[in-house]
Amino acid sequence: MDRCRKVDALDDAIHQKVRLGVMSLLASAGEADFSSLKNTLGVSDGNMSTHLTVLEEHGYISIRREIDGRRPRTTYSPTGLGRRAFDAYVLALEAFIRPR
Amino acid sequence: MDRCRKVDALDDAIHQKVRLGVMSLLASAGEADFSSLKNTLGVSDGNMSTHLTVLEEHGYISIRREIDGRRPRTTYSPTGLGRRAFDAYVLALEAFIRPR
Repeated sequence: MDRCRKVDALDDAIHQKVRLGVMSLLASAGEADFSSLKNTLGVSDGNMSTHLTVLEEHGYISIRREIDGRRPRTTYSPTGLGRRAFDAYVLALEAFIRPR
Repeated sequence: MDRCRKVDALDDAIHQKVRLGVMSLLASAGEADFSSLKNTLGVSDGNMSTHLTVLEEHGYISIRREIDGRRPRTTYSPTGLGRRAFDAYVLALEAFIRPR
């Protein structure tokens, strides 16, 4: 069987578009705050929050909360598990869509 | 703004995993029948049917029905629109996940 073409080969926690965008941005930037992620991906506050929660629940991102002047600031980073899952997803995706 | 990182840059009709698998298989093979698509992607009959209908409604695939001996056989091919949409999706995806 052609295992690489099974849909199960792609991690659902990462394949969803907003989460894929977050993991991709965090993998390259190392960290980003809520507004930056939201504005770059072009999604609503609620949508952004929902998907960040899913990634956190999977252990793919970690969250740091601090006060910047008087304003709360929340910064997100990929965990080691998240980086490995993202790298594995990209490899699986390439195998999934490559021509035979 | 970084247009390439907006989630809207990725075509929802193609990004869904089963539909991505179908478009990818049809783009490389030219055509495939229902069982072959279903078995290769590892999905149920119902799931396969649902996503083939979405792709047909978008005008991305065409369907040919014929009788093979006594058994009905349904073959799917990408339309020109479907091939262009798939190519555009792959380019958009590469821009979406590439490191900066």
